[in-house]
Amino acid sequence: MREIIIGVDLGATKILYGVATIKGEIIYSNIIPTHSEKGIEYILGKMTKAIKGLIKDYENTNKIKAIVIVTPGPLSYPEGVVINSPNLCWDNVALRDEMQKEFSYPLLVEKDTNAAALGEYYFGQDSKYRNLIYITVSTGVGAGIIINGKLYRGISGGAGEIGHMVVEPNGAVCQCGRQGCLEALASGTAIAREGGTKGAKEIGDSARQGDKEALRIINSAGDYLAIGIGNLVNIFNPEAIILGGGVMQGLKDLWLDKLRQQVYSSAFPLNTRKLQIDVTKLGDNIGLYGCVAVIIDQENKR
Amino acid sequence: MREIIIGVDLGATKILYGVATIKGEIIYSNIIPTHSEKGIEYILGKMTKAIKGLIKDYENTNKIKAIVIVTPGPLSYPEGVVINSPNLCWDNVALRDEMQKEFSYPLLVEKDTNAAALGEYYFGQDSKYRNLIYITVSTGVGAGIIINGKLYRGISGGAGEIGHMVVEPNGAVCQCGRQGCLEALASGTAIAREGGTKGAKEIGDSARQGDKEALRIINSAGDYLAIGIGNLVNIFNPEAIILGGGVMQGLKDLWLDKLRQQVYSSAFPLNTRKLQIDVTKLGDNIGLYGCVAVIIDQENKR
Repeated sequence: MREIIIGVDLGATKILYGVATIKGEIIYSNIIPTHSEKGIEYILGKMTKAIKGLIKDYENTNKIKAIVIVTPGPLSYPEGVVINSPNLCWDNVALRDEMQKEFSYPLLVEKDTNAAALGEYYFGQDSKYRNLIYITVSTGVGAGIIINGKLYRGISGGAGEIGHMVVEPNGAVCQCGRQGCLEALASGTAIAREGGTKGAKEIGDSARQGDKEALRIINSAGDYLAIGIGNLVNIFNPEAIILGGGVMQGLKDLWLDKLRQQVYSSAFPLNTRKLQIDVTKLGDNIGLYGCVAVIIDQENKR
Repeated sequence: MREIIIGVDLGATKILYGVATIKGEIIYSNIIPTHSEKGIEYILGKMTKAIKGLIKDYENTNKIKAIVIVTPGPLSYPEGVVINSPNLCWDNVALRDEMQKEFSYPLLVEKDTNAAALGEYYFGQDSKYRNLIYITVSTGVGAGIIINGKLYRGISGGAGEIGHMVVEPNGAVCQCGRQGCLEALASGTAIAREGGTKGAKEIGDSARQGDKEALRIINSAGDYLAIGIGNLVNIFNPEAIILGGGVMQGLKDLWLDKLRQQVYSSAFPLNTRKLQIDVTKLGDNIGLYGCVAVIIDQENKR
């Protein structure tokens, strides 16, 4: 029987869930709204129901290897507890244990950026960059770090919080309480804050039409992103920086070329010698690829 | 026969060299001035002479396992070429090949901060923190990164250049050309620049005596250091940050407590849960411990 993974990508606004083979072939996927305002029990119940439906549909004709849930962080490792998550407004939710008790199949929980980095490593880039940083720019800014072909989580699961790298100590106040975090300067939220009533997408549209204020906002956020990425290049000397997230994908035409140029010209020459900077090609399904990749990473004992 | 390492710690102002057992017992050490103004040939000749003297003295009664030279970076890996080093004013010096041709013993070259991080990992902390960042604050600011008990060099040897993390985009101009690098704000050079004719040590002394301007300078540098370290804690979630370097050791009484407090209160709670911040106890011989640790790391296939 075919080995499959049931994957759930829990986001603040929507839940992507589906079924994929262990080789990364997506068999089924669906999106439902999260309604995070309805609270923890509601969301856990919704995920449980979705997973049970998939089990019913697939368990007779496939071997279900595991259920993988990816969630916004911070997520403690190895406990699988969501700690003080600004996106979900959850604190101390024992996500892994709560969900595992509903199912007899092995259930893994991973931070969304970590899973996306693994998805990108295995499926987006075909394992060719053994030191890769995946950066998401959406509502927030975060990263997943692959070192020597394995996910790096740090000692408690907190690694990759690059959105909370301060790059402007007197800059805008961040949700985390500090000032001038990359997330407070370069995220979709930061762009929207500067733009008044408009969202990041509309500000991007105005910038393309030559609106000077919109261009200033987009360029400022892009410049901070370049500073943050330049910092990471000097710290990690990675082979690849892969960018994703809705805001990044939406502003790719305005950001990517300039960002590459700024990073290549400002970081240490030794550190950019073998550096690739690119935008993910996995699209919206990166969360499901990530679920599969979490299992591959776990089985990779290297 | 006892297995020994011949180690050389090449610095911009002095060369520390000596002999240690593979277990990290330092048998002999000596310091000579570098005179970097006399050029590459002179310095290579001086190191060669020192090493040849040690070989003569020790090879009959010991088994010389390797010669290890640690050098300011950037140092390309695996080639061992010093690239555009601001401290040595060297560019494109094939240090490993140049030195290896003088000796029949295996010769390894490593970046000084990397070697110090390994020395700290194995000898300072007895291998107890498998994810450790060693940070040196001296003329410059740099780091060595230990991940899962192994040195992390990045793809070309450039990892750990944390001194060139921009934390104040309109801040002081750095030797690297960018503005507001941590090194331009928190190094001995930065402190001395702010202090006019005084060096970092004298400014520290004035601060201890209550001189307000000196206190401002020391606090400003310390605050930037805390920002930089907080950023690294959010990015790496390490078990330990170990601080070293002449400026750090000299200003420990003025900096360490406040720095801990700033980092613990500003970084993500999950990321500081298991975090130790301390100053190295290896003292001036850290370079020689590092030379031994480079060999241990190389033999550790984990």
